Amino acid sequence: MTSVKRVHNFNAGPSAMPLSVLEKAQAELLSFNGCGMSVMEMSHRSKEFEGIIKTAEADLRELMGIPANYKVMFLQGGASLHFAMEAMNFRPAGASADYIVTGAWSKAAIKEAAKLGTTNVVFNGEAEKFNRLPAAGELNFDPKAAYVHICHNETIHGVEFKSEPVLPAGVPLFCDMSSDFVSQPIDVTKYAMIYAGAQKNAGPAGVVIAIVRDDMLERVPANLPTMLDYKVMAEKESLYNTPPCWSIYMCGLVFQWLKELGGLEAMYKIDQQKAKMIYDVIDKSGGYYRGHAVPESRSIMNIPFRLASEELEDLFVKESKKADLIGLKGHRSVGGLRASLYNAVPLESVKALADFMVEFQKKNG
Amino acid sequence: MTSVKRVHNFNAGPSAMPLSVLEKAQAELLSFNGCGMSVMEMSHRSKEFEGIIKTAEADLRELMGIPANYKVMFLQGGASLHFAMEAMNFRPAGASADYIVTGAWSKAAIKEAAKLGTTNVVFNGEAEKFNRLPAAGELNFDPKAAYVHICHNETIHGVEFKSEPVLPAGVPLFCDMSSDFVSQPIDVTKYAMIYAGAQKNAGPAGVVIAIVRDDMLERVPANLPTMLDYKVMAEKESLYNTPPCWSIYMCGLVFQWLKELGGLEAMYKIDQQKAKMIYDVIDKSGGYYRGHAVPESRSIMNIPFRLASEELEDLFVKESKKADLIGLKGHRSVGGLRASLYNAVPLESVKALADFMVEFQKKNG
Ligand SMILES: Cc1ncc(COP(=O)(O)O)c(C=O)c1O
Ligand SMILES: Cc1ncc(COP(=O)(O)O)c(C=O)c1O
Ligand SMILES: [Mg+2]
Ligand SMILES: [Mg+2]
Ligand SMILES: [Mg+2]
Ligand SMILES: [Mg+2]
Repeated sequence: MTSVKRVHNFNAGPSAMPLSVLEKAQAELLSFNGCGMSVMEMSHRSKEFEGIIKTAEADLRELMGIPANYKVMFLQGGASLHFAMEAMNFRPAGASADYIVTGAWSKAAIKEAAKLGTTNVVFNGEAEKFNRLPAAGELNFDPKAAYVHICHNETIHGVEFKSEPVLPAGVPLFCDMSSDFVSQPIDVTKYAMIYAGAQKNAGPAGVVIAIVRDDMLERVPANLPTMLDYKVMAEKESLYNTPPCWSIYMCGLVFQWLKELGGLEAMYKIDQQKAKMIYDVIDKSGGYYRGHAVPESRSIMNIPFRLASEELEDLFVKESKKADLIGLKGHRSVGGLRASLYNAVPLESVKALADFMVEFQKKNG
Repeated sequence: MTSVKRVHNFNAGPSAMPLSVLEKAQAELLSFNGCGMSVMEMSHRSKEFEGIIKTAEADLRELMGIPANYKVMFLQGGASLHFAMEAMNFRPAGASADYIVTGAWSKAAIKEAAKLGTTNVVFNGEAEKFNRLPAAGELNFDPKAAYVHICHNETIHGVEFKSEPVLPAGVPLFCDMSSDFVSQPIDVTKYAMIYAGAQKNAGPAGVVIAIVRDDMLERVPANLPTMLDYKVMAEKESLYNTPPCWSIYMCGLVFQWLKELGGLEAMYKIDQQKAKMIYDVIDKSGGYYRGHAVPESRSIMNIPFRLASEELEDLFVKESKKADLIGLKGHRSVGGLRASLYNAVPLESVKALADFMVEFQKKNG
């Protein structure tokens, strides 16, 4: 274990990484596996790197139970680029795509898709400040939609799907899973596409993991810019051009860590326990802390909450920083406070935050 | 200095990084500047990361002498994505763009541009196996071209521009400088756009540095996918979405290393000296080693060369690996051998290669 001083990291992304993963990366930074080069210095076509990317993929397939008829890709551009790419690749000319808009990130996704063609808003939670998921009865799907897009966990508004919406027969489900990827078991077969920016649960920024069912790739139109063409990326196994090697390597180390920890069932239990610690403080605060999301829609990853005034919120941020609790300021678009409790945030950190919240209320209640 | 065994790294990209840079990254991997977080764990909107990206930009501006009317951006997608983006952003509807095709990479660039609109081949060296640059008289520019694209250094074919082609008045010069970026002083004012994948001279894979003159940004059409819109990227100072933080940090360390070394004039002297060591062995080998490029077009970064037979080339690769000389196999598209002598490849490594080549000829001549 390191003797370096580390803080309690509640950043929303990029965010905490497992200490043991960082230590491994540090130990082999000058020479990966005795090869005499850093991972940053090796050819992406070398045997060493092939081992890294293939192992990362195999471990992810095992963790998530990804069937053989899905491709797994490690790509660039951030989830934001894939908002545009999913529409370019998978919404045929003239067709429309359905979007369930539950927060800032599904709103950003439909914005990109609307630039390029027809979209349909199946649900929009904005009038209620994105504080809840839709009920099944509220969803008026287009039975001819090219796909339905959801954001599995809204990082800013803190609402998270507990199960997949039931779609009209034959309509594929697409999912931006950036902020709760590998936090819980998922039935991948319910999705035709899952993608996630790595920088929350899977690794550092700079890589997007895309999981695409084979039949979707038949939709890809001819003549897309090569780097925006999922079919080429799949055929070239993420190596059409130089991939973000270091970020992929780090994801691989995180997947190994998850396997050692017992996989996604085990991770999920811990994540639920961590989230409960903070929601309990909120719920027992007698309204002093006010969670943004309604209880049934609450995220186990991101907990946005408010205090009675902005002054009090500013004080909370200031005092929490002094206690080495970092990243608790809410997203600039909504204000308030937010605790992100990603996989790599240790129980001790969550305990420290819960204790701090209780103390803060006592002092400033 | 490290006691870890390191090899002589002649990879074409990703490629060698300065040892002192890697050591610094290693030392602060668990806690950047005492902040208690890795660079991989910090918010891209934090003060710490703002310092990292702003310092990297300022250092690059100083190194290259980038005027104030150019934006500097740190983006994703690899240079391959920017092949498409330059055409999308800067070739107005209906206009044509000129391409000087001197090797595999300018050929790849025009392929992307041609998918999206009109292109014009000003010169094509393919019939001569891309072994030389064009003479001024061979260039039949379109005086109305939206821009002229060049690849400053063809990584695979080893030809490198020594000076900028003279264009018709008012036509802007665009340049893919991926493989000789920051290897030499450049008069940035001769270019309207320069971009480079970092993974040769500037840092690890996963970040593209784009330098764009302000007036070009006025050409950007409305309604591009946001991540493909240079105007948005410039306005948001590379932080529209989560940037590849670690790769940017590493580039910043490389820029600091270049400044300490004396800047691009000093680097250029060393790079010229290194290239001369290998070209001298080739030229004195009596035809045993045959350089691909004609002498006037030779690259100081990438030296592709051949032996009399593929068997001998295979033996060269095998024996060189035994001597810890790594990455000397030529690109799979052209075969043969290639030595990449990027900034971070130390003189000692180049000396080791030169000695090996002389010995190899003696033994197998
Ligand atoms: C759920 C979700 N989707 C998409 C994004 C955008 O990701 P990126 O910054 O990698 O483009 C984010 C970023 O925070 C996110 O939380
Ligand atoms: C000159 C040049 N341009 C473009 C590229 C493509 O870069 P990327 O792999 O980052 O897309 C390369 C890669 O080797 C290159 O050498
Ligand atoms: Mg993280
Ligand atoms: Mg967010
Ligand atoms: Mg390099
Ligand atoms: Mg190359």
